Amino acid sequence: MIPTPYLLFLGDAPDPLAAKVAQGIRDWRPDHAIAQFRLPNCGADMKLPDMTLQEAWDAGARTLVIGVANRGGVISPLWKEVLLEALTVGFDIASGLHNLLRDDPALVAAAKAHGRTLHDVRVPSVKYPIASGARRTGKRCLAVGTDCSVGKMYTALALDKAMAEAGMKATFRATGQTGILITGDGVPLDAVIADFMSGSIEWLTPDNDPDHWDLIEGQGSLHHLSFSGVSMALIHGGQPDALILCHEPTRPHMRGLPGRPLPSLRTMADTALMVARDANPECRIVGISVNTAAMDEPAALAYLAEVEAEFGLPAVDPFRQGAARLAEALAAV
Amino acid sequence: MIPTPYLLFLGDAPDPLAAKVAQGIRDWRPDHAIAQFRLPNCGADMKLPDMTLQEAWDAGARTLVIGVANRGGVISPLWKEVLLEALTVGFDIASGLHNLLRDDPALVAAAKAHGRTLHDVRVPSVKYPIASGARRTGKRCLAVGTDCSVGKMYTALALDKAMAEAGMKATFRATGQTGILITGDGVPLDAVIADFMSGSIEWLTPDNDPDHWDLIEGQGSLHHLSFSGVSMALIHGGQPDALILCHEPTRPHMRGLPGRPLPSLRTMADTALMVARDANPECRIVGISVNTAAMDEPAALAYLAEVEAEFGLPAVDPFRQGAARLAEALAAV
Repeated sequence: MIPTPYLLFLGDAPDPLAAKVAQGIRDWRPDHAIAQFRLPNCGADMKLPDMTLQEAWDAGARTLVIGVANRGGVISPLWKEVLLEALTVGFDIASGLHNLLRDDPALVAAAKAHGRTLHDVRVPSVKYPIASGARRTGKRCLAVGTDCSVGKMYTALALDKAMAEAGMKATFRATGQTGILITGDGVPLDAVIADFMSGSIEWLTPDNDPDHWDLIEGQGSLHHLSFSGVSMALIHGGQPDALILCHEPTRPHMRGLPGRPLPSLRTMADTALMVARDANPECRIVGISVNTAAMDEPAALAYLAEVEAEFGLPAVDPFRQGAARLAEALAAV
Repeated sequence: MIPTPYLLFLGDAPDPLAAKVAQGIRDWRPDHAIAQFRLPNCGADMKLPDMTLQEAWDAGARTLVIGVANRGGVISPLWKEVLLEALTVGFDIASGLHNLLRDDPALVAAAKAHGRTLHDVRVPSVKYPIASGARRTGKRCLAVGTDCSVGKMYTALALDKAMAEAGMKATFRATGQTGILITGDGVPLDAVIADFMSGSIEWLTPDNDPDHWDLIEGQGSLHHLSFSGVSMALIHGGQPDALILCHEPTRPHMRGLPGRPLPSLRTMADTALMVARDANPECRIVGISVNTAAMDEPAALAYLAEVEAEFGLPAVDPFRQGAARLAEALAAV
C-alpha cells in the first residue's frame, strides 16, 4: 500500500502524453494529488499547485509518485537529485518505470538511511497463493477486451466513479502499473509468475459484503496470442458475476500482431462467457464499452446504437457519456 | 542445455515413487542414463549399474541428475556430501527440487571453484521474448488435458518414441521440470513471468523442416481455474497444427479443486479447438489419449472403444497400447 496523498513528479516531461500516469491520478483520484513538481522545460501541467518538496510535505503529501515515462530507460541525473532530496525530506517514492528504483544503489542507500520505502509497482511485492477456486462472497465485474489497450482500465475507473455517485459499494481493483499508481495498490499481473496468476486475482478480490462490487481492471484479450494467458487467469481467478465487453471499432489489427484482426464483439462475448462460466455459472454480460475516440460524434453514436440493438445491452463510450448506464446494469444484477 | 549422459542420483529414496524423475529418464532417454548412485537404505532401483562418482565419470557421465524428490524441502547433509564430491570430480548437477541448488552457498562455491554449472530446471535460465504471433515452418502437436496430471507428458513422450520408430522427424518439447530433466532442455513454463509465457513457447518451437513435428508437453487444463492461463499460453504460443486430448475418466473432481468436476471430452474438444484456431485456423484434433490406469483391462478397452466411436478418432491408452496409432494420425495430417 502506497502512502497517500501524493506529490506528482512530472520531471522534464516533453509533452502531456509523457505524463499520462500523473494525468490518470489527477483524473481518477483527485484527492490523492495535492501538488505537482516540475523541472525546467516541463511540457506537462496537471493544473495543480507547483510545490517544492518541503512545501508538499508540509501540505501533507507522503509519497512522491513518478508520473512520467522516462526516455531511454535511464533515471537521469536531473531526476536523481530530486528523488534523493525527496527521501531526505521524508517521502516514499513510487514508480512504474521499467528500470527499478531498487536497482539504483544511491536511492536504496538513501531510502534506508531515512527509513523510507521505494515502491516499484512493476514487480510484485506479495507472495501470491495458488488459486483455490473457492467461491467468495460479494460481487465482481471484469472488463474484457477484444484487444489490448481498448479502454478496459478507463471503463472500470469510470464505473467506479459512477457507482460511487450512485451510492453503490464498489472498489476498483488495479491489475496494471498505471492502475496501481492511481489507486495505491493492486497486482502487477503481467509480472506475476505463471503458476500464481489466478491466485493473485483471488487475493486481490477477497470476500466482501454481498452488495459490494469489485471492479477488476482487465488485461490483454482472450484472443490476443501474446497475452491471452493473462486474460484467462483474470477471468478464472476473478470468477466475475458480470462482464463488460470493451472494444475499439476502428483498429486494423490486434496490437503488435499485424495481419491478425480483432475478434467481433459477438465472438468475444461467446468466448468470454464460455470461459467465465467454468468459474461462475451465473456470469453474464451486462454492457458494452466502446472507445470511439477515433470517430466523430455522429458516427460514434450511430455505432453505439447499432451495437446496443444487436446485443440488447447498454453500449456506451464512458469518455463521451460517462458510465452511469453501466452502473445501472450492475445494480440490476 | 544439460550435458549428457547422466549419472542418476537416487539418494535415500524411500520407495520407487520417490524416484520418478529418475524412472522417467530411464524409461524415455535410456541412452542418457548410464549408471545410478544410491545411498544406503535406498528403496529405488533403476536396474542400472551402481557406480561411484569416479567410475561414472570414467564411463562418460557428465551430469549428476537428482532423480529423487527430497523430503521437507531440505538438501540433507548426506546428499550434500555427494553433491560436493560430484562437483570436485567434474560433474555438473541438475535438479528440479523446490529448494534451489543455487541457494546453497557451499554448492555455489564448489561449482565456481571447479568451473561446473548448477542446473536448477525449476527456474527459467533464458530471457524469453514477448510472443510475436508469427507463423513458423514445421508442424506442432500439443497435448491438451481435461485436468492436470492426466498423462500429457507421458502421451507426448510415447508419441516421440513411436514416431522415431516409424522414421518420422519429431522432437519432444518439455515444458515442465520432469520433462526438462528427461530431455536436458525445455521451458519451465509454470515459473515463467506472465507476459512472456506465450513467447517462451514460440522460442521453444522455432522454425523447422516442413515435415518435422514438435511434440509439445501440455500443462494444466483450459478448464482448470488455477492453471488455465498457462494452458492458454501453450496453445497460443505453440500454434499447434494438431491436438491430442488427454483424459482420466475416473477422477471425481479436478486436481486440487473439490466439487469441480472435469469437463467432458466433448466440452474440452470444443474449447481447445476454438482457442487453437485463433492461432492456427487449420488446427484439428487427431486423437485421444486416455489414462486408464484405474480401470481393469476389459473396462479400459470398452471405454476406449466408446470414445473412439463417439469422436471418430483413434482413442488409445499409450501405456497399455503404445502410441503408434497416434503417430499414424499425425502422419496423415
